Amino acid sequence: MTIDQAQPTRRGALATFGAGVALAAAGPSLALTPALAAVPPATKQAPAFYRNKVGDIQLTIVNDGARTMPLPDTFVRNVTKAEVESALGAAYVPTGKLTVPYNPILLNSGGKLALVDTGNGQGDAKGEVGHLLPNLAAAGIDPKQLDMVIITHFHGDHILGLRMADGSLTFPNAEVKVPAAEWAFWMNDENMAKAPDAMKGAFALVRRIFKDLGDRLTPYEMDKDLLPGVTPFATVGHTPGHTSLAIQSGNERLLLQADVTNIPALFLRNPGWHVMFDMDAQKAEETRRRFYDRASADKVLVAGFHFPFPALGHVEKDGANNFRLVPVAWNPVL
Amino acid sequence: MTIDQAQPTRRGALATFGAGVALAAAGPSLALTPALAAVPPATKQAPAFYRNKVGDIQLTIVNDGARTMPLPDTFVRNVTKAEVESALGAAYVPTGKLTVPYNPILLNSGGKLALVDTGNGQGDAKGEVGHLLPNLAAAGIDPKQLDMVIITHFHGDHILGLRMADGSLTFPNAEVKVPAAEWAFWMNDENMAKAPDAMKGAFALVRRIFKDLGDRLTPYEMDKDLLPGVTPFATVGHTPGHTSLAIQSGNERLLLQADVTNIPALFLRNPGWHVMFDMDAQKAEETRRRFYDRASADKVLVAGFHFPFPALGHVEKDGANNFRLVPVAWNPVL
Repeated sequence: MTIDQAQPTRRGALATFGAGVALAAAGPSLALTPALAAVPPATKQAPAFYRNKVGDIQLTIVNDGARTMPLPDTFVRNVTKAEVESALGAAYVPTGKLTVPYNPILLNSGGKLALVDTGNGQGDAKGEVGHLLPNLAAAGIDPKQLDMVIITHFHGDHILGLRMADGSLTFPNAEVKVPAAEWAFWMNDENMAKAPDAMKGAFALVRRIFKDLGDRLTPYEMDKDLLPGVTPFATVGHTPGHTSLAIQSGNERLLLQADVTNIPALFLRNPGWHVMFDMDAQKAEETRRRFYDRASADKVLVAGFHFPFPALGHVEKDGANNFRLVPVAWNPVL
Repeated sequence: MTIDQAQPTRRGALATFGAGVALAAAGPSLALTPALAAVPPATKQAPAFYRNKVGDIQLTIVNDGARTMPLPDTFVRNVTKAEVESALGAAYVPTGKLTVPYNPILLNSGGKLALVDTGNGQGDAKGEVGHLLPNLAAAGIDPKQLDMVIITHFHGDHILGLRMADGSLTFPNAEVKVPAAEWAFWMNDENMAKAPDAMKGAFALVRRIFKDLGDRLTPYEMDKDLLPGVTPFATVGHTPGHTSLAIQSGNERLLLQADVTNIPALFLRNPGWHVMFDMDAQKAEETRRRFYDRASADKVLVAGFHFPFPALGHVEKDGANNFRLVPVAWNPVL
């Protein structure tokens, strides 16, 4: 039987192809090694952190886990659920559900440690998320060592990790930098009062997380370095103050996009699709197209919070209006 | 300044784009957190192992490192070096050098542990390779626990890890399964005598590694399961007895290709290219095209020894005669 005749799901159906060599067995056929005890399958995935350098700046992508949920009917507001399922299938993932990973990034610039976004915190009973602290520990980092937390925007999966389950600060020695425009929007009582009921919880969450931070919290402006080589720039639409970071050292550069897109297989492939989380869908689409037009033209490495770990890749055009993520090749040595 | 005006390598050139939100700062601007000691950059990459399930069979991809070398003039025998450099550039990697990763795979089928291929062994002074044992340890595996080593073919990067630097067996309790056709070719004294001088070392290496294995070594035939759900099939050309494995459990299936191709960005993109390591280039190309025609039609997950870690992906057509690897999305939970 050859591979060309094989049924994809039938056992034993793959046999010789590209053959033509006589199978002359030689040597003894009986193995006398001892029978070992059965080994149960492992129940834990490998720790998920990954280091990458941009000139003198070291990045460590530290995964916080991934959530799998039934595909919401309106996950993409402006296309049918069937179209979303078709795009998932084309990306070789199950079509009836959705897996969204979360990837905070630790920066070491000039000996200062800054974590960009904080993940979902410690409250997940299912164990799908809340991996940030164990993965930081696997990378040899104590939360007390952090000098700074940089927040890109105020959605829960980016800010919840600032607090432990008991409300104490996860990174007790870190100052917290938040985009000034994002701060202005969410802390405005008028915006909260006029928000639809479904959004009031988000306003309350922001106030709970940032409460009593006092001097630790500083709103930051665009185009002013947060650390040497770490420059924020506005990528609004997803939220009113959504911010990305340009990381540059020497001649090396990386764009940390945060949530310019969610899952690449859906929204790089289809930058015109409006994910349910985009607060201003039109503006988010404009931002997305300009971001990826530029990133693909410059062939610059992009880090995405919701890209599959290690969440780094190059963006290239696929036809006139679509894009594709080419994940970075894992480098086992620094 | 907007992203559209920015120079790709100029610092501070990325500023507001997609803007339109007033930057109203609020809250205190002075951070009074303590100054922490400078943290030096980490000098070690994360451990590289990754677990994946195929039905009831658990796979753990265990990286042995990667070698980076100047791009050989004849790395691809039938195209110019400039064409190879162009393909590397199109894959966003440096064009003057070549990085080749090595990914043995541990299988747990029915409580039996089998390692497929063994990597480069412990003799690398530069530390680029020889990561298999530390990565196995990180995955909680003691080499004594292995029941079986399955070899796909007899090139050094697949068999050297069978022995420690002192010549002792790395996996003292494992039986060693080798393809009967591969064994017949390399152990044949006539083949060794008529081999070109450049290949005599490879024959000597095979004899040194497999010497005195006695009852531990068993040549295996195609289409006979090595473990439940683990079926070898011939994919010759790269070497005379080169073998791949079909892994199947329930309705899930994976093809462990070994060296049907080397680096995907070169040889999936260009299946007609002949890597310098293919012993029968025409046969290797035929095997490659048939393997990927089938793998892409079936949308089956493929593991490649020289794919970037975690070395798993789907193969899809890109035009009539070329292919593309779509790496699997990292799953942080089992």
